[in-house]
Amino acid sequence: MEVKARAPGKIILSGEQAVVHGSTAVAASIDLYTYVSIKILPSTENDDRLTLQLKDMALAFSWPVGRIKESLSSLGGPFPSTPTSCSTASMKLILALVEEQNIPEAKISLASGVTAFLWLYTSILGFKPATVVVTSELPLGSGLGSSAALCVAFSAALLACSDFVNVDMKQQGWLIFGESELELLNKWAFEGEKLIHGKPSGIDNTVSTYGNMIKFRSGNLTHIKSSMPLKMLITNTKVGRNTKALVAGVAERTLRHPDAMNSVFNAVASISEEMANVIQAPALDDLSITAKEEKLEELMEMNQGLLQCMGVSHASIETVLQTTLKYKLASKLTGAGGGGCVLTLLQTLLSGTIVHKVIAELESCGFQCLIAGIGGNGAEICFGAPSWL
Amino acid sequence: MEVKARAPGKIILSGEQAVVHGSTAVAASIDLYTYVSIKILPSTENDDRLTLQLKDMALAFSWPVGRIKESLSSLGGPFPSTPTSCSTASMKLILALVEEQNIPEAKISLASGVTAFLWLYTSILGFKPATVVVTSELPLGSGLGSSAALCVAFSAALLACSDFVNVDMKQQGWLIFGESELELLNKWAFEGEKLIHGKPSGIDNTVSTYGNMIKFRSGNLTHIKSSMPLKMLITNTKVGRNTKALVAGVAERTLRHPDAMNSVFNAVASISEEMANVIQAPALDDLSITAKEEKLEELMEMNQGLLQCMGVSHASIETVLQTTLKYKLASKLTGAGGGGCVLTLLQTLLSGTIVHKVIAELESCGFQCLIAGIGGNGAEICFGAPSWL
Repeated sequence: MEVKARAPGKIILSGEQAVVHGSTAVAASIDLYTYVSIKILPSTENDDRLTLQLKDMALAFSWPVGRIKESLSSLGGPFPSTPTSCSTASMKLILALVEEQNIPEAKISLASGVTAFLWLYTSILGFKPATVVVTSELPLGSGLGSSAALCVAFSAALLACSDFVNVDMKQQGWLIFGESELELLNKWAFEGEKLIHGKPSGIDNTVSTYGNMIKFRSGNLTHIKSSMPLKMLITNTKVGRNTKALVAGVAERTLRHPDAMNSVFNAVASISEEMANVIQAPALDDLSITAKEEKLEELMEMNQGLLQCMGVSHASIETVLQTTLKYKLASKLTGAGGGGCVLTLLQTLLSGTIVHKVIAELESCGFQCLIAGIGGNGAEICFGAPSWL
Repeated sequence: MEVKARAPGKIILSGEQAVVHGSTAVAASIDLYTYVSIKILPSTENDDRLTLQLKDMALAFSWPVGRIKESLSSLGGPFPSTPTSCSTASMKLILALVEEQNIPEAKISLASGVTAFLWLYTSILGFKPATVVVTSELPLGSGLGSSAALCVAFSAALLACSDFVNVDMKQQGWLIFGESELELLNKWAFEGEKLIHGKPSGIDNTVSTYGNMIKFRSGNLTHIKSSMPLKMLITNTKVGRNTKALVAGVAERTLRHPDAMNSVFNAVASISEEMANVIQAPALDDLSITAKEEKLEELMEMNQGLLQCMGVSHASIETVLQTTLKYKLASKLTGAGGGGCVLTLLQTLLSGTIVHKVIAELESCGFQCLIAGIGGNGAEICFGAPSWL
């Protein structure tokens, strides 16, 4: 049996940082995916193995299934229908299995992803021999939700293989889970995210699971449906950043200037609400799409100014802003700031020549450019030979 | 009789644009001056002339006093103690005298300054022959209050020559007018400003007259006294801008996004109030001056973000910001935005090497750099030979 799953990355359209202080934020899926393929292998007497290939990094990890069973059978899996947090004791057992693989020092940040994989695999599928292959279009650690996409794609593929979730395997192409399966998937992905991030907000896995857009405020999520095509240039500055330090910096600035900063957070909240309204409002014709795009551009520019006011911009981000400004394109940072990625709205009627020029200029600065449609489908699965590998 | 006057330019420390929407703003004098020297000449029978020399531009305008009298005696001057608006009818008569001078087309923007000069001269001194020389350290039309400084310096020199204002001519060095003379001076300068700007706010001439700093909100001015030395690098982008269009742009954005923009204006108001408090609070030692400077830098950075949110930044301003950021210096635009000048705080303990480096880099971009002490004296007069000409 072979199943593929894909799960999208995400961007924050508005409200990052301010959301920590009670503002509304809007997140959206992007049509850049992490792909997971699982091939369940027939059991043999002595040579059953579970293999995880990270194709983009040319890395592979492999365990004898017997070895995994010996270590983890005390955890009592599989229990696909009851998403469960990995206890500290269980984590220790899994970490021992991960350490046996001698992950190269330079790639040690992958260890938490491998840990999440082993937890999800044994909890959902138990101890079956299989080969699992991962590829991704998402740059790692740049705020595009690559770890959530990984956990969602793992969980989706695993659930599709489990007897618990009922899927019509004869259907062609990418399939979407039903409502209750999506809920289950999202919960499992969140458990995986916890092993990677400690205390994830749950936004990234929810966007990756359900796709489209989500408005969130003080822990409350609202799914919103975009009524317009939306395309962004995503520029990865490749500047790594410390999200915790950035969030702490904004909190300290808020303590020093409470009145000013609270007004700033209010402004961000208004911008997020407006953005959600513009995105949901039906566009009646081309003109009205252009008008909506211009409104979004203005709101992005405003949000960026407020992020600068919070002190989370960065020289690399400013370079991107100034480059896109030359072409009269509106941009804002996305995510925690201090580096990471910058969004630039690409209007429907924008000429391809301009897009090529701005990308060439950004790439000449050493940045990575990706073009993504915004607000598409969430997790999907597919049966058959993975032609995209 | 010979008298010199000097009047300082101004910067907006915080609150530009937002002040139009009810926020507090803080303006301060800078120790860059416009100088006016007046030499009253003895009357002759036929050759009495009034000459205005603009030394920096190598321009001179000269009228026979008889010609001025013939044109303007109907206006009924001099009336130094009663600052009066120039009526439309009077303006027409003065403009005729200005037009006779054939100002070169490229310098036609000076015509309004010459008009203000003739109005102030004849209203305060009547029809005496004199040579008036103007020099200035202030770039024109870049938001540093050059026209107000001109009107204040004209008015101060003229009032010092008039019999109405009593000054002890035997005193040496730069002298400050008394309280009631300052009030009179400020009113006359405002009348001059009206001929140059139509509807000036009165802030520029008030700062130039009184010096130091002024907090203003909804037309109410409060003088504030700085308790710390403050030095700024002023970078003139040389990008001309349309203040009216910029103000209109902010107003339109406010109509489109009332909630967000009103929060932004509230944030600016808090920043201006905080800035005024920091500047006025007594500094106890060097450490505390550094702490105050750092607070001002943070407030400047925040204000700049909010100005970007209002949409009044400009590529040239961003270039200055990014250049100074490389040296970890905080900057903000000053004035209407869209070009004009950028302020960069120079901390007391900042090394001269850094200052030279950043200036060299900014000048290599084609910008003009000035260093100015902030919050010094206002208008001053001096009797005797003008050694600075």
